[in-house]
Amino acid sequence: MKATVMYKAGDVRIDNVPDARVINPKDALVRVTRACICGSDLWPYKAMEPSETGIVMGHEAIGIVEDVGEDVRNIKRGDFVIMPFAWSDGTCEFCAKGLQTACVHGGFFGNEEIPGAQSEAVRVPLADGTLYALPVEKDDALLPSLLTLSDVMGTGHHAAVSAKVAPGNIVAVVGDGAVGLCGVIAAKRLGAEQIIILGHHRDRIALAREFGATNVVSERGDEAVERVLEITGGLGAHSVLECVGLEQSTITALNIARAGGAVGRVGVPQDAKIPMADETFYKNITISGGPAPVRAYIEDLLPDVLEGRIEPGRVFDRTTNLDGVPDGYRAMNEREALKVMIEF
Amino acid sequence: MKATVMYKAGDVRIDNVPDARVINPKDALVRVTRACICGSDLWPYKAMEPSETGIVMGHEAIGIVEDVGEDVRNIKRGDFVIMPFAWSDGTCEFCAKGLQTACVHGGFFGNEEIPGAQSEAVRVPLADGTLYALPVEKDDALLPSLLTLSDVMGTGHHAAVSAKVAPGNIVAVVGDGAVGLCGVIAAKRLGAEQIIILGHHRDRIALAREFGATNVVSERGDEAVERVLEITGGLGAHSVLECVGLEQSTITALNIARAGGAVGRVGVPQDAKIPMADETFYKNITISGGPAPVRAYIEDLLPDVLEGRIEPGRVFDRTTNLDGVPDGYRAMNEREALKVMIEF
Repeated sequence: MKATVMYKAGDVRIDNVPDARVINPKDALVRVTRACICGSDLWPYKAMEPSETGIVMGHEAIGIVEDVGEDVRNIKRGDFVIMPFAWSDGTCEFCAKGLQTACVHGGFFGNEEIPGAQSEAVRVPLADGTLYALPVEKDDALLPSLLTLSDVMGTGHHAAVSAKVAPGNIVAVVGDGAVGLCGVIAAKRLGAEQIIILGHHRDRIALAREFGATNVVSERGDEAVERVLEITGGLGAHSVLECVGLEQSTITALNIARAGGAVGRVGVPQDAKIPMADETFYKNITISGGPAPVRAYIEDLLPDVLEGRIEPGRVFDRTTNLDGVPDGYRAMNEREALKVMIEF
Repeated sequence: MKATVMYKAGDVRIDNVPDARVINPKDALVRVTRACICGSDLWPYKAMEPSETGIVMGHEAIGIVEDVGEDVRNIKRGDFVIMPFAWSDGTCEFCAKGLQTACVHGGFFGNEEIPGAQSEAVRVPLADGTLYALPVEKDDALLPSLLTLSDVMGTGHHAAVSAKVAPGNIVAVVGDGAVGLCGVIAAKRLGAEQIIILGHHRDRIALAREFGATNVVSERGDEAVERVLEITGGLGAHSVLECVGLEQSTITALNIARAGGAVGRVGVPQDAKIPMADETFYKNITISGGPAPVRAYIEDLLPDVLEGRIEPGRVFDRTTNLDGVPDGYRAMNEREALKVMIEF
């Protein structure tokens, strides 16, 4: 079958790889209908050490179950499913609490151990705990939004939940990538009164406004902090969503949080450290977040997608077939595209 | 009047200073009955730059109101009061939410601006918001425990609340100082099932056990982390109370927290940075805490003190008069005393 293989920084190819198949009794084989390229795929695209075998990339997909192992009980052939970016047993102490990304038997897609989903088909371990069977028939118009429930919409929601967004809050979103934009949707959905987006890409900002952002701060660093403080009467935001992961963006996030406020961070940290003193301790800031348990959030978010109240699929501004994926990486890396969807 | 004045690192003297008095219409003058030396007073004791005028030290006291300004409404002469370490108006948005340490008109005792309470008397700004009038007569046996409500007991409780201690939790307390020991009391009071104390002073550990600690880890660094993981079935503690403030103790706290768990930190940070990656992000750890709003917690904790269910006053292992305070600093700094109470 054909799959997206990354061999080193900047080197992504569409290769023939061994067909994905059920190996363990709890596996499912999913024929991919839609997948996409993630902002976090750009980190290895910038920095991956050369690998002879390469890595089959991709951790976001929806598709149709083609085969299941003998111990799979709830997922069945023909199901139209969302594949969250992490696989999980659904039964351990962490899964039971809705933190599937800490599942004691789980893991992530798109690494040396478990091939990813930018691929014609994907093997899904622990299928019953991992996959979410959609209660709908395949519907072309909703596919992009359903696809975001495998990562970016759930991740933006996790940032908002971690930042304790509540009705009436002033919320700031650091970053205007796909996750930041989904964070705007999530903040509005949870009742934020004012949503300040920090970003400087004109088209993304325009989309953020359509999603519910009320203020735009396009400055960076200290100037951005000053602007947010101005907008918030000098006090800062109750809830800050950190959707980048760099040290500078995290420091900005901490500096624009109001005393007693919370920063929910979902940007994968790039070797950054958080200063412990003024920015966090003296203001009694809560810092929370991490890899989003998107599996837990599907139940919550799905009705809003199905009934059209939220349209996170609008973050896709380019669609390609599998052969176009290498150029999709290039386009996202050069900020020519916001997020690229792959159609099969 | 006589007061404790620090002039530089290691130089603490009992000096005659101008009498404390009501200056602003919202002030009260409190005749100090009991005060004490705080672990955080040891940071300047180790590192303070020379000052010609010196600083009147101390931020923990109970005493009797001797005078009030004309705009003081609720506090009156003769009231027996607790003076929390921060003064606050009691009405701003932060005070209303119970975060008095972020009061927009407030501040802290024992600095260049506001003289401290290791002193015969102390001027208390914003008396109505700051002071808590005790619903009891002065009672010698309870004074030490009532005094801890001005800081260490409230601070240990803040660590526990920030670390989301709940019934059935496994709790770890990093640090066996007075705050750590009060953290043990707070964790037990909030229903912790297992309380692991990390410390290595034999007498303090013995007290921690009496307060409810079930396990002791006297190793440091990586070995301490290993021991806690052993005790917790490899998973770590649900709630971790960081009661030191050094980089190493904070890293230990993060490393012994279970995925999805919370670290409540109240140790004043000493220029430390928190690593953002593995220890916190990937485990979805919540980091919270800061200067404790002890004013907000008095209401909660007082009945347990008055009815003898908790005895935080047992952290005082030495009592002195004002003249003995310089030696009290020395004794605490050399770990000869745990916490020194000052009787007037």
